[in-house]
Amino acid sequence: MTRLELGGDLIELTRALCDIRSESGDEAAIADAVEAALREYAHLEVLRDGDAVVARTSLGLPSRVVIAGHLDTVPIADNLPTRLVDGVLWGRGAVDMKAGVAVQLALAAALDAPTRDITWVFYDHEEVAADLNGLGRLVANHPDWLAADFAVLGEPTNGGLEGGCNGTLRAEVRLAGVAAHSARAWMGVNAIHAAGEVLRRLEAYEPRTVPIDGLNYRESLNAVLVSGGTAANVIPDGCVVTVNYRFAPSATPEQAEEHVRELFDGYDVVITDSAPGARPGLDAPAAQEFAAAVLGITGGAPAPKFGWTDVARFSALGVPAVNFGPGDPLLAHKVDERCPVDQIHLAYRAQHAWLTA
Amino acid sequence: MTRLELGGDLIELTRALCDIRSESGDEAAIADAVEAALREYAHLEVLRDGDAVVARTSLGLPSRVVIAGHLDTVPIADNLPTRLVDGVLWGRGAVDMKAGVAVQLALAAALDAPTRDITWVFYDHEEVAADLNGLGRLVANHPDWLAADFAVLGEPTNGGLEGGCNGTLRAEVRLAGVAAHSARAWMGVNAIHAAGEVLRRLEAYEPRTVPIDGLNYRESLNAVLVSGGTAANVIPDGCVVTVNYRFAPSATPEQAEEHVRELFDGYDVVITDSAPGARPGLDAPAAQEFAAAVLGITGGAPAPKFGWTDVARFSALGVPAVNFGPGDPLLAHKVDERCPVDQIHLAYRAQHAWLTA
Repeated sequence: MTRLELGGDLIELTRALCDIRSESGDEAAIADAVEAALREYAHLEVLRDGDAVVARTSLGLPSRVVIAGHLDTVPIADNLPTRLVDGVLWGRGAVDMKAGVAVQLALAAALDAPTRDITWVFYDHEEVAADLNGLGRLVANHPDWLAADFAVLGEPTNGGLEGGCNGTLRAEVRLAGVAAHSARAWMGVNAIHAAGEVLRRLEAYEPRTVPIDGLNYRESLNAVLVSGGTAANVIPDGCVVTVNYRFAPSATPEQAEEHVRELFDGYDVVITDSAPGARPGLDAPAAQEFAAAVLGITGGAPAPKFGWTDVARFSALGVPAVNFGPGDPLLAHKVDERCPVDQIHLAYRAQHAWLTA
Repeated sequence: MTRLELGGDLIELTRALCDIRSESGDEAAIADAVEAALREYAHLEVLRDGDAVVARTSLGLPSRVVIAGHLDTVPIADNLPTRLVDGVLWGRGAVDMKAGVAVQLALAAALDAPTRDITWVFYDHEEVAADLNGLGRLVANHPDWLAADFAVLGEPTNGGLEGGCNGTLRAEVRLAGVAAHSARAWMGVNAIHAAGEVLRRLEAYEPRTVPIDGLNYRESLNAVLVSGGTAANVIPDGCVVTVNYRFAPSATPEQAEEHVRELFDGYDVVITDSAPGARPGLDAPAAQEFAAAVLGITGGAPAPKFGWTDVARFSALGVPAVNFGPGDPLLAHKVDERCPVDQIHLAYRAQHAWLTA
């Protein structure tokens, strides 16, 4: 097992976390390393559920905050081990979101006398279907572990403060045909050709931008997977186009489903996953305290979050929550995922200032 | 190992052959059973190359014919074991082409004094890419095993006589995009959406019918497989549409390739497999003898063969060849593949008449 040095160099800690491969579903090794490292600190009580690890102070302070991050990554694309080049850390997870996790772990170790009680949450299965999500499992199994006045999610925001998030919905558009030998194609009905009209509608689709509480939520609707056919000499009798709709937090998942069903009117549409968005929530007093302390160090102004994040789960629990973390979200999931080390240090300093103010 | 009774009931033999599962690449069991059964007959010399089995008489007769069939099937679709209902045999392979193989095996066992020397050929890997084809391997390894004045291929023709065959070409149309997180789709380029135009061209394509030597060869061009995307939250950076072009035997594979490249002008097209067709060849004297004997039993007139068959390999060796076998080719590769037992008996009688005339 990799031994993580929480009290050492922050960038070395980030690299060590990235270099423990942890694609969704394969988080046991990183969770074990995180748990073992946290257990070395007497000021923390450490809990575990599956591959989620929770560590918390219990100083009897008047307020408690949750600071959370996920341990999993999208599939590695020949972009590990990490490389550190001219002050930039390259590699899968550098942005989404091992840098944020490193900041959390370093602060968890360092802050034995914070001004707020803190619950640190590290969880699994964020990059896959919502029903597998480790934070969702904690909400179901141990809601008491997540009780707080305010929550920060360390998802990449380029070091800025991002409020709320878009919702997300996945659906399969299923095309049916009639199989036949491809030498006598006229006896069959080609299900892949039928997918042409589905892709045509997606190409012509104009995504909306929805203003909410002064922030502009930009939507999108895309085919993300397509699969059809059984053999190279058979007219295909099936084809499935998987689409992902990112919708503004003013709509419910039910309204988002209706929108997708309207677009694909006449087709067999099966909803496979959905999760509501979260409104910005920056009017809560705890959010305003956080914004004042953090923006005092980083500068800048609040912005909308486009990616679905687990702030929506805190929203649903009645806990105001924001996104704040190092790394450019535009580089998340990309082959050339990378993060300037200065942003990682800045995220540490900004949250340290808030938690000791 | 299943023991095959070549001298028993022809329909039971057909069922036994179907019930030995032999998807392409998995023909060892059926080849072993066929080889063992043929070795029981002293009038046959039995040879083997991989999972191809050859049995031949050597009576010093003035002419030699090859009668060939393939042992593999397309993937089983929950349509085995066979069922015999009201004189119809149902199940994978009943048409393509275990019924033809059963007729060959029964004739091989019965005909110890034919009027022509006969080379019986049973081979592997017909239903997959041309470069794996077992008959092609025999042509390369043992061309002497295939020397003959005339060849019959037992592919399904509904008991009719079919001349020549269309050629076949497979190509991949490869679309490229730029990956991005699907929550910020505007930063990527969607390779699946780009496939829409490819499918549009296929939908609009009007296949030709080409008359050759009085027979009309009907062409087709279809998407047979499509695959794109890496994960449900990533804008896809790749999509591949596999197309299959069945072209009339008046065109060479090079001309067929040019036609496909013209249709997909502007796209990355990679040819993955091709095989030339065969002209009808019914003007050869040996073909006319066969036609007279067989059509005398079955009735009917010669027709074109639409599916690519290995008659093209005999054509290339300079051996005139025709298709003749039980089973409706429109049912080949279908879930409800089935063959009337009367057709199996008729194919046996027709070839028996020819080989003893």
